[in-house]
Amino acid sequence: MSSSDIFIGETIGTAILILLGGGVCAAVTLKRSKAHNAGWVAIAFGWGFAVLTGAYISTGVSGAHLNPAVTLGLAIQGGTPWGDVPLYLASQLLGAVIGAVLVWAVYYGQLHAHLTDPEIVEAQPAEEGMVDQSTAPKAGPVLGVFSTGPEIRNAVQNVVTEVIATAVLILAILTQGLNDDGNGLGPLGALITALVVVGIGLSLGGPTGYAINPVRDLGPRIVHALLPLPNKGGSDWGYAWVPVVGPLLGGALAGGLYNLAFA
Amino acid sequence: MSSSDIFIGETIGTAILILLGGGVCAAVTLKRSKAHNAGWVAIAFGWGFAVLTGAYISTGVSGAHLNPAVTLGLAIQGGTPWGDVPLYLASQLLGAVIGAVLVWAVYYGQLHAHLTDPEIVEAQPAEEGMVDQSTAPKAGPVLGVFSTGPEIRNAVQNVVTEVIATAVLILAILTQGLNDDGNGLGPLGALITALVVVGIGLSLGGPTGYAINPVRDLGPRIVHALLPLPNKGGSDWGYAWVPVVGPLLGGALAGGLYNLAFA
Amino acid sequence: MSSSDIFIGETIGTAILILLGGGVCAAVTLKRSKAHNAGWVAIAFGWGFAVLTGAYISTGVSGAHLNPAVTLGLAIQGGTPWGDVPLYLASQLLGAVIGAVLVWAVYYGQLHAHLTDPEIVEAQPAEEGMVDQSTAPKAGPVLGVFSTGPEIRNAVQNVVTEVIATAVLILAILTQGLNDDGNGLGPLGALITALVVVGIGLSLGGPTGYAINPVRDLGPRIVHALLPLPNKGGSDWGYAWVPVVGPLLGGALAGGLYNLAFA
Amino acid sequence: MSSSDIFIGETIGTAILILLGGGVCAAVTLKRSKAHNAGWVAIAFGWGFAVLTGAYISTGVSGAHLNPAVTLGLAIQGGTPWGDVPLYLASQLLGAVIGAVLVWAVYYGQLHAHLTDPEIVEAQPAEEGMVDQSTAPKAGPVLGVFSTGPEIRNAVQNVVTEVIATAVLILAILTQGLNDDGNGLGPLGALITALVVVGIGLSLGGPTGYAINPVRDLGPRIVHALLPLPNKGGSDWGYAWVPVVGPLLGGALAGGLYNLAFA
Repeated sequence: MSSSDIFIGETIGTAILILLGGGVCAAVTLKRSKAHNAGWVAIAFGWGFAVLTGAYISTGVSGAHLNPAVTLGLAIQGGTPWGDVPLYLASQLLGAVIGAVLVWAVYYGQLHAHLTDPEIVEAQPAEEGMVDQSTAPKAGPVLGVFSTGPEIRNAVQNVVTEVIATAVLILAILTQGLNDDGNGLGPLGALITALVVVGIGLSLGGPTGYAINPVRDLGPRIVHALLPLPNKGGSDWGYAWVPVVGPLLGGALAGGLYNLAFA
Repeated sequence: MSSSDIFIGETIGTAILILLGGGVCAAVTLKRSKAHNAGWVAIAFGWGFAVLTGAYISTGVSGAHLNPAVTLGLAIQGGTPWGDVPLYLASQLLGAVIGAVLVWAVYYGQLHAHLTDPEIVEAQPAEEGMVDQSTAPKAGPVLGVFSTGPEIRNAVQNVVTEVIATAVLILAILTQGLNDDGNGLGPLGALITALVVVGIGLSLGGPTGYAINPVRDLGPRIVHALLPLPNKGGSDWGYAWVPVVGPLLGGALAGGLYNLAFA
Repeated sequence: MSSSDIFIGETIGTAILILLGGGVCAAVTLKRSKAHNAGWVAIAFGWGFAVLTGAYISTGVSGAHLNPAVTLGLAIQGGTPWGDVPLYLASQLLGAVIGAVLVWAVYYGQLHAHLTDPEIVEAQPAEEGMVDQSTAPKAGPVLGVFSTGPEIRNAVQNVVTEVIATAVLILAILTQGLNDDGNGLGPLGALITALVVVGIGLSLGGPTGYAINPVRDLGPRIVHALLPLPNKGGSDWGYAWVPVVGPLLGGALAGGLYNLAFA
Repeated sequence: MSSSDIFIGETIGTAILILLGGGVCAAVTLKRSKAHNAGWVAIAFGWGFAVLTGAYISTGVSGAHLNPAVTLGLAIQGGTPWGDVPLYLASQLLGAVIGAVLVWAVYYGQLHAHLTDPEIVEAQPAEEGMVDQSTAPKAGPVLGVFSTGPEIRNAVQNVVTEVIATAVLILAILTQGLNDDGNGLGPLGALITALVVVGIGLSLGGPTGYAINPVRDLGPRIVHALLPLPNKGGSDWGYAWVPVVGPLLGGALAGGLYNLAFA
């Protein structure tokens, strides 16, 4: 795969993943959206089909990683050269930032209506450390459009949840190699991976909102911090390392387990 | 592809797309329907499987465009000859009109019950310009069976939303060419495209109701204007250009992006 | 295909279709079921995956018609010999009766608890003609486990709805022949057909509950009439011809349209 | 298939099945979960995609049985040697125990918050025999994260429900052999089997919560009994034989029916 294929596929694919994934969070949480209160089933299928769309568009170009945890797992497995890893990761982060900006463009009216409604503004969390873990506010509805946040704030617990959830995803992608060509996803593989993501969301998303992808959380959080939204509240940087470290550990764990048990 | 194949496939395929897509709007919004209040998940899957059904029936005949934005994107990409474009578009518009009439036939009883219920009649929007964009009424429940309408009325914002949502769809269809034959959809491609449409609905449908297809909005709006329904209210022609122009721009954007980045 | 293959495949396949289809109606409507009030999305997917399961099990044996309207459409198209039609239909009716008995076996406790709850008993419809069409009671919750009933009772209207909904289904099955082998369903075809049925349920099921299959309605109605359930109410035989005649006309219409436009 | 392939594939695959399956029960039933009250559609799709994920990961290794009823059915059919059966079953039980422990790890915070909320503690069922079958409490929300329990407690009725629901699943798996290779699942087969499980959950899960897999119930029940959770209540051992015996009978029934009718 050429560098330009990796750059194009991962940037565009991740941008579309985050556009649709952040989009469904906006659709369900923001007032004045037709999908307001559509519920967790909408969230889980929305993210799953975000993966499907981003992966389907980029699978023939860059192999559709779209996630540093995927790239890390494939590098440990041996399917992706380590020398390509930095370009994959940089493209994914760039794509995630672009995707979050596109969510803002699509839901500009809804975001502003939501943030200038006084009821909602008071429910926004202030920027905070992790001092009082059990009672700290969770991400408010507008930060939740961009980034994940835990229902019960406990660093160790939240990392464990992200590690396990991500390891399931990466193991599903790595074992594709037993049936397919071993590097990236074809159309049927993209479909099954997407439904696996729906399943992880339904089953393991309850405690932390399932980042399972470092750039899925970090890219939009950067955009949240930079956008000139009125009354937007803090970007909860105290939690930001959890959805980066947890998924990377999960990807590494899955890569190691694959080499140990399946290779 | 012969002219008669294009005409037959696109007219019948688009008629079925609009029959099922308008049907789910009727099913969820009209009182005295068993699916009344089934929610946004029903709407998104209903439209997605409408695409599946229409595309699956016509894919072997006309390549299953069913949408001028698809035809435009494929023409820019080079997969569809420009000379075939007018016939594709005319057939799609005819099909959309037929589909909307079939929705009326299937839900005739529900539409009439709904429109003669005095509570509901008062909630219908009057025909209007776009003077007061933020407070203008959105499409009432009966116009909403036929056409889209924005939650927050702002022409630029609504066009942007439709451009982005449509570009995602068309890009997914164009990149199929990297895996498949490049012109139209096979069965697995029809399935994945349908689920991409479910995803676009869940994620990007909140602000405008996601026309993402000029004839999906224009055809049924014409039918709404012509049908002798009692108390049906205006057809909101002031908004009608948005779901035509937005999707066409989105299709062109995706075609250009494809040629630039993927070709 | 041998007669014994047709008999075995259609009887077992239709029994499983009706077991799962009637099952989801029981699951959602009966009190003391874990899925009580799960809504129309559950109904539509439940019936769709009922088709998937029945079709997948019988596709390699009898071609998985499971529906007289499918058999009729395929016979008009030329894919199924007319001489096989009576055996297909008889096997399908037998399978539907067996399936409805199995629903009774699975939900025996729920049915009895439901029927001996005095609140619910009073809501059961009496056996009735079609005299007062707009105010006649629709099928009560226990008859609804077995058979369909209209929201607004109007014979012509209800037939039209069933004709159109069935024609969409049969057209989707017949056009498979343009991609596949032309007689019955393979695994991917079974999946797509199932999702088409989900779509028809979401979109066109609102007025009549979408029989779209004569034996799906008649078989369970016979079982409802014969089962010794306490306080079960009438079997609404006045409506029973609609979901038989409508789907047969729809199947014939689709067969004719196929021969005219697609052959 | 080597013994180590069977051991690795079945242990890891079943662990992931139970992690995701138990996970969706936790996600929907526990307070302080983002998916709290997401409903039966979430449960049914969550379990279905749990099957997809576990089966997809292990299909190339051990054939993805993940269920003693599948192994029994395949052994009766002749696809799996009887000598491999004990290793399949032991690996499946081990995997189910591991999966349930992983659910506890992912939802540790939610489980503890839930169990120390005084309102909920009082709703927990005491350990009980089956003396008063109609009024005995059903499984409380925390036992329900691990094991199944009936809505109406009646041993014969509950066994019948599990037998029929399991027989449908096993028949769908066995008849794959008419299209595919006959032992285990490929990717498309894994997808269809997963959707069949969604269908069984929607349609036949209402009375007992559809174990349809002996280790799916027994493994997590053992974990529930051993885990040091505060106020966890009894593990309802009086019911534990039903979701073991019912599914095994169902698997045997399907194997016998297959040999009689389809072989």
